[in-house]
Amino acid sequence: MARREDVRIGLLGFGVIGSAVARALTQRGKVLAGEVGCPVRLAKVLEKDIAKTRNSGMDPSLFSTEAADVLGDHQIDVVIEALGGEHPAYEFIKQALSSGKYVVTCNKEVMAKHGPEFLSLAREKGIDILYEGSVGGGIPLIAPFKHDLLANEISAIHAIINGTTNYILTRMACDGMDFSSALQEAQRLGYAEPDPTFDVEGIDPCYKLTILAMLAFHTLVRPEDVYHEGISRLSSRDFRYARELGYEIKLLAIGKEKDGSIEVRVHPVFLPQELLLAKVDGVYNAVQVEGDLVGRVLLYGQGAGPAPTSSAVIADVIDVGRRVNSGVTLTPQLKLDASKRIKPIAEIETRYYLRMSTVDRPGVLANIARILGDLGISISSVIQKESDVSADAAEIVLMTYPALESAMQQAMTQIESLDVVREISNFVRVED
Amino acid sequence: MARREDVRIGLLGFGVIGSAVARALTQRGKVLAGEVGCPVRLAKVLEKDIAKTRNSGMDPSLFSTEAADVLGDHQIDVVIEALGGEHPAYEFIKQALSSGKYVVTCNKEVMAKHGPEFLSLAREKGIDILYEGSVGGGIPLIAPFKHDLLANEISAIHAIINGTTNYILTRMACDGMDFSSALQEAQRLGYAEPDPTFDVEGIDPCYKLTILAMLAFHTLVRPEDVYHEGISRLSSRDFRYARELGYEIKLLAIGKEKDGSIEVRVHPVFLPQELLLAKVDGVYNAVQVEGDLVGRVLLYGQGAGPAPTSSAVIADVIDVGRRVNSGVTLTPQLKLDASKRIKPIAEIETRYYLRMSTVDRPGVLANIARILGDLGISISSVIQKESDVSADAAEIVLMTYPALESAMQQAMTQIESLDVVREISNFVRVED
Repeated sequence: MARREDVRIGLLGFGVIGSAVARALTQRGKVLAGEVGCPVRLAKVLEKDIAKTRNSGMDPSLFSTEAADVLGDHQIDVVIEALGGEHPAYEFIKQALSSGKYVVTCNKEVMAKHGPEFLSLAREKGIDILYEGSVGGGIPLIAPFKHDLLANEISAIHAIINGTTNYILTRMACDGMDFSSALQEAQRLGYAEPDPTFDVEGIDPCYKLTILAMLAFHTLVRPEDVYHEGISRLSSRDFRYARELGYEIKLLAIGKEKDGSIEVRVHPVFLPQELLLAKVDGVYNAVQVEGDLVGRVLLYGQGAGPAPTSSAVIADVIDVGRRVNSGVTLTPQLKLDASKRIKPIAEIETRYYLRMSTVDRPGVLANIARILGDLGISISSVIQKESDVSADAAEIVLMTYPALESAMQQAMTQIESLDVVREISNFVRVED
Repeated sequence: MARREDVRIGLLGFGVIGSAVARALTQRGKVLAGEVGCPVRLAKVLEKDIAKTRNSGMDPSLFSTEAADVLGDHQIDVVIEALGGEHPAYEFIKQALSSGKYVVTCNKEVMAKHGPEFLSLAREKGIDILYEGSVGGGIPLIAPFKHDLLANEISAIHAIINGTTNYILTRMACDGMDFSSALQEAQRLGYAEPDPTFDVEGIDPCYKLTILAMLAFHTLVRPEDVYHEGISRLSSRDFRYARELGYEIKLLAIGKEKDGSIEVRVHPVFLPQELLLAKVDGVYNAVQVEGDLVGRVLLYGQGAGPAPTSSAVIADVIDVGRRVNSGVTLTPQLKLDASKRIKPIAEIETRYYLRMSTVDRPGVLANIARILGDLGISISSVIQKESDVSADAAEIVLMTYPALESAMQQAMTQIESLDVVREISNFVRVED
């Protein structure tokens, strides 16, 4: 093995994640040196906001407000990107890779949008970009796909990969809270942002699913290929019906491969209560993978936060540090087959839960059932609750057998046009 | 990168696991070649029992009944050991490593007993021995400790790593079966061996915990260091009380590090119902790890069986295949610090569940409570069930606050010597 005097790290960003990474790098110097085979030194930190660098307890000369001081330093071997967001992370990562530096990132957005470009650039340069921290915090997720599960054909991923929404859903399910109170509580506890759109509307899990689906199915997926719906339409009534029917409601990121086609979608689902995935509560994340040899595997842990993310980043730093120190180049492994078709949501087939508000009159259910039957959709169970006589209103809840999404959408349009139906209050897909 | 024409594999053993590995190697040739960078060929298979090799569909010239045909073949780069048991696996692995061949094994017994010796021999020879399949089937377990979780100080492992006993406990808990009926059912379904001692008495999880504890705590552990108890003393009454008190009963393999001392033990425990680990049912395995950065992580899946095990073995073959093909040597990573002390069971501190049969007379509970109190053990809850008047018998169930095992053992001896106590029916440790 070639031996280096040290491996030098440049860090981009000293926010919540970046400063935790810097702390872990410094405090675990001995472990890092032991694993890598030489000292691993934090050589330079880019942070535009000088206020963040004060009182850091770190040598002030480490900090710079100029990206060039990190990216242009030929002595820096590895760049850790902890800026988040698409820009300027994209430009900085490209520049680092172009100049032959290894990159470690925990940025889901930039990896989902530009991962394939980065990986092919890295391959060209004989280096690599690692991104274990971009999905699921410190849960071993990317590495299992890249190594441990390689022998498998993966048929499905079912993932709870957004802690904010899982916290809100847990509070709605277990404590009967409505969506807005649960969201407010999550904001108060720091689990949700002041503007929660990114999490609540399913955009964050979209990015993460894009990354996982490329790894699992070896095919090119772009964030815009992922169908997504958020959780804001769910009401506490849906949770009560779900429990009564034997289900939990979770926001799942789902990836499937069947007959050469890929499904990638993020939306609330009814999940059978007995599945371990249905029992993942609070801010925890879990990814369930189905492989043809390994069967069903589930990987669970804290999906975010500075400490768990720095656990993943440091593991990646050790991996590339060993390569820098030994002079070994290993070709990046994301091999993407662009021939697999990504199914539009209209073509997916699943079971459905449908909750409707109707007038309280004989024959209403018969009308609804006829519409479904004409479109080839069979009903598996019905709950009709005691009606509110004064308001002339009834609530009907249906579960269907598997049907095409397009047929179901057509059915819902026709049902809503019935005089006797006031509204379709909710519609949730079922995963068995 | 150096490029090889191919990587040649020798397989020791063509039983249930060995034949599944051979099948996977052959059927996934294209994936293997893509990942390794050159074809991976099964060159020779050792199997003493010729009956097993007939009708295998494989080229008969691949088989040999002589170990020397595999171990002495200089063209073989990697030896897969799928014999199981200590001998002759130990001798064969040593011989393979001594002659500079990489080894992949899924043998828990030989790794628990001789892993450190193999790893130091491999280090000396500039090769490696991989053993992902030795614990937890295809669940990524060994690799996370060796890579993904490296940045962490691991404080605890709590593992369900024996599918046979977890199946039996699940049937006892969910269906009120007694131990012997549940065992018989497990035997009928092929989950338990005709002689179930190895699983039921906790010997199998002992080996697996030895392997995991060395990886997690970087210290030398021998199987005989692991305290172990089996599940045969549990009765359906214990499961009823556990549920009533908010617990599930699981056979856990527990490893902990605190203040430089290690605890390693396998025994039934009361586990709070709300923990995800308590919800792992049937033949599934799960390992929960606590790291200082990552927090709590849980890895779940099928812990045994030919297909899951071959998933792990093939992943290891890809790993070493890449090294053979690229000519890269990486030093094996099991660094063992022998300075950590392994606590005897008498020194552990935990809460306890105690079920006793007593005579039905006033003052019995007071006598028991006095013995516990004198030994500094506090009672956290008591259940005294309606007594059987005709038999003059009562059943008392106690839960304690944390106490030293040695104090608890002393208390039990004194309690059993009371005239009014017929027997201590069971005693189970609690993990919170």
